[in-house]
Amino acid sequence: MKTVSENAAFGGTQGVYTHASEVCGCDMTFAVYTPPQAKAGPVPVLWYLSGLTCTHENAMTKAGAQAWAAREGIALVFPDTSPRGEGVANDEAYDLGQGAGFYVDATETPWSPHFRMWSYVTEELPTLLFRNFELEEGAQGITGHSMGGHGALTIALTYPDRFKSVSAFAPIANPSNSDWGRKQLGAYLGAESAAWHAHDSSLLLREKGWKGQLLIDQGANDQFLDLLKPEALASAIAERRQPATFRMQPGYDHSYFFVASFMEDHVSFHAEALYA
Amino acid sequence: MKTVSENAAFGGTQGVYTHASEVCGCDMTFAVYTPPQAKAGPVPVLWYLSGLTCTHENAMTKAGAQAWAAREGIALVFPDTSPRGEGVANDEAYDLGQGAGFYVDATETPWSPHFRMWSYVTEELPTLLFRNFELEEGAQGITGHSMGGHGALTIALTYPDRFKSVSAFAPIANPSNSDWGRKQLGAYLGAESAAWHAHDSSLLLREKGWKGQLLIDQGANDQFLDLLKPEALASAIAERRQPATFRMQPGYDHSYFFVASFMEDHVSFHAEALYA
Repeated sequence: MKTVSENAAFGGTQGVYTHASEVCGCDMTFAVYTPPQAKAGPVPVLWYLSGLTCTHENAMTKAGAQAWAAREGIALVFPDTSPRGEGVANDEAYDLGQGAGFYVDATETPWSPHFRMWSYVTEELPTLLFRNFELEEGAQGITGHSMGGHGALTIALTYPDRFKSVSAFAPIANPSNSDWGRKQLGAYLGAESAAWHAHDSSLLLREKGWKGQLLIDQGANDQFLDLLKPEALASAIAERRQPATFRMQPGYDHSYFFVASFMEDHVSFHAEALYA
Repeated sequence: MKTVSENAAFGGTQGVYTHASEVCGCDMTFAVYTPPQAKAGPVPVLWYLSGLTCTHENAMTKAGAQAWAAREGIALVFPDTSPRGEGVANDEAYDLGQGAGFYVDATETPWSPHFRMWSYVTEELPTLLFRNFELEEGAQGITGHSMGGHGALTIALTYPDRFKSVSAFAPIANPSNSDWGRKQLGAYLGAESAAWHAHDSSLLLREKGWKGQLLIDQGANDQFLDLLKPEALASAIAERRQPATFRMQPGYDHSYFFVASFMEDHVSFHAEALYA
């Protein structure tokens, strides 16, 4: 693991690191924010998964999360959204290939050798993190925006024992029934939509539920509402009688201004569960 | 004035606008954040002047100021740092020409026809703003980072009746005695250093003082300390017996992580003066 940069931020440290990923077969970059409380020992950690076109950097610089993480004593992890570099397959579209890993392990060519973001985020990166940073493995929460909200929900619903809390900002909520999903799940996992089920948070939630509260924020003026399908997630919450706060926020769009506006609420929500 | 974008943010609106600037002889872009309180009538306004290489966008997306501006009921204005576009002179160096206007009115070729950021920020843009937004002309504060801290201090010290409050993040504090200053003031204003005096905040402060409190934050690990010359400003404060809080912040560098870390303090500082 190599340090790319470390900056003091809100009494803690915002770092960026690279490492040779075995899972993805390329160098991967990620960011970690450790709050001031980490100087005294391990702290809980909140994973933030980013959306289409993003790297580790977007949320790190634009979501304003460090202010609240420092207040609550929580670390933040910002993984990249796909493998990258020479020899890694790509597509001309912004929503497939590099920057658009969709948090799945691809089984189809040309994606399968590198596009293994599911295993990267759930196995390789956690191992690296808990070995190198003062983080409590037993106190993890996960959130994300758009494609990253999809990743956060599907990962938490698959590993309910690992995560104490989950939330999402404008998640791609029903990818097996959306052009943000059918295209990518088809390309990465093949045409058999049975394989997609494990990567559709509305289907998973209806089937399994979640042990705790959910917090979902969605902008009512989101330019991608038709692709995000929040109605599928809202229906699953209602049908399952899932304890949840689903907020349709008037006036807000899909931008990081939306994410930043409600970040305090999300970090507080996770802190309550992680320090419980 | 044309609207480039408007995004809901923290209950208010983050907008980006362009207009044909007569003063700069080119189209100029700026950003305005109006907090939720502006829906009920005019609110105080805090100018934020940016540093070298920045546009209106850097602080708008990375300084985290909107959270605190919304809490305090203060609007934010983010001007660009220079004229831009075809026909506008430039230099290969990052610290001269476009992105490096230094908040002066150039008298020297090739800069003089367009590089008039002093008049733009103190005359043309205020006129436009107070005509088009719900802002209180009688309640203005000003701050900035690096070159923008220099601009904020020199403008406030020149127009003490206009500004109720001034602060700065890592300002270029003594440009007439630094390689961040002598080069640019020489290029824009000519070799006669008498003309530079009005654009050196340490000299101005020692000479004129400031009617209220000053708030200055400076990172102790700033990679540009030798160029910023905070010691000149600290000396002026001490010699003048200027009411001020000058904070040398251990561990912090010159980045926006530093700015964001102390933005809450600065917005609160201005709010106290602007709502007094």
